[in-house]
Amino acid sequence: MEQNNDGNLSQVRHVVLVLSGKGGVGKSTITTELALALRHADKKVGILDIDLCGPSIPRMLNVGRTEVHQCDSGWVPVYTDAQKSLALMSIGFLLEDPDEAVVWRGPKKTALIGQFVSDVAWGELDVLLVDTPPGTSDEHMAVLENLKKHRVDGAILVTTPQAVSTGDVRREITFCKKTGVRILGIVENMSGFVCPHCSVSDPT
Amino acid sequence: MEQNNDGNLSQVRHVVLVLSGKGGVGKSTITTELALALRHADKKVGILDIDLCGPSIPRMLNVGRTEVHQCDSGWVPVYTDAQKSLALMSIGFLLEDPDEAVVWRGPKKTALIGQFVSDVAWGELDVLLVDTPPGTSDEHMAVLENLKKHRVDGAILVTTPQAVSTGDVRREITFCKKTGVRILGIVENMSGFVCPHCSVSDPT
Repeated sequence: MEQNNDGNLSQVRHVVLVLSGKGGVGKSTITTELALALRHADKKVGILDIDLCGPSIPRMLNVGRTEVHQCDSGWVPVYTDAQKSLALMSIGFLLEDPDEAVVWRGPKKTALIGQFVSDVAWGELDVLLVDTPPGTSDEHMAVLENLKKHRVDGAILVTTPQAVSTGDVRREITFCKKTGVRILGIVENMSGFVCPHCSVSDPT
Repeated sequence: MEQNNDGNLSQVRHVVLVLSGKGGVGKSTITTELALALRHADKKVGILDIDLCGPSIPRMLNVGRTEVHQCDSGWVPVYTDAQKSLALMSIGFLLEDPDEAVVWRGPKKTALIGQFVSDVAWGELDVLLVDTPPGTSDEHMAVLENLKKHRVDGAILVTTPQAVSTGDVRREITFCKKTGVRILGIVENMSGFVCPHCSVSDPT
């Protein structure tokens, strides 16, 4: 890691992307659970939410209306606790009205993600998790391009067992190969539903 | 409806968008079910799938590897049956390898959607359903811009009961208001799960 050229990411030890082709498979949930598990293991964790049209991270971590403050080195992330063990940045914190629609074309999204990567003063972090929108488009290219100088450790892919979802995850694998991102693992989420009434799992 | 300026859409009576802020809430499933129900009512139906990074429509309707042919007035849609009662167009039919990742920035997506709107020879249709990707971005703006000359009857919004999904649908409502698209209705999908073992629904 080049301590000098990385700016605000110079003290971030690992960067991991959470990807999925399909929406609604649990990317933000997995990102949140991963962050909480890492924090439980005494790691300092950050989550960068680059789903600009549907930011879920603020709600997942129950962080309500918060203002993002500025410091000398950029934007101060939002912390979930006084110990500052979990740092967050999401467009959800930048919108005045949480119901506001972000109707942005690619270039504007690319610009904000550039700022998110360079201008957030994360400080010292063991792991920075990047929660992404579904697909393989502007947001994904923008974050990889901006992280190029920094090392990306790899990506965790999330899918559900359905054919439409595994098809999308195959496209995501192609994306990782094309862009040279190492795949750390694939999570099969929602593999079954355990009935709270009779405790039988479906599919069994 | 201006019969003369609409080109390939001149014989399309109604255009309905299926939107949702969040992914994985069942947009493509609802689109497919709506199309099948309309066909059952003896309507001629078309589905335009503009989810370029995760096209689900070909798989939902079980249309495998198919080639899209050209005719004098443009691309011939893919029909699911010999009666040609259900016409489809999706990027899924244009990819050589179904696992291919469409790693496209906004302008390229906008261009293809422009072609999808103007160059598909739908012929006579009672309803054209437009299945969209999650969010409110390039694809949505592109399809509305290109359909401007033609009348868009409105949008059907799809959500699930979870807070992250209703939050996203609220953003989608803002998008519809901003862009002047009438909201025809909201479908709450996945409201409960009926256990196949004990037949009790959760939540009850």
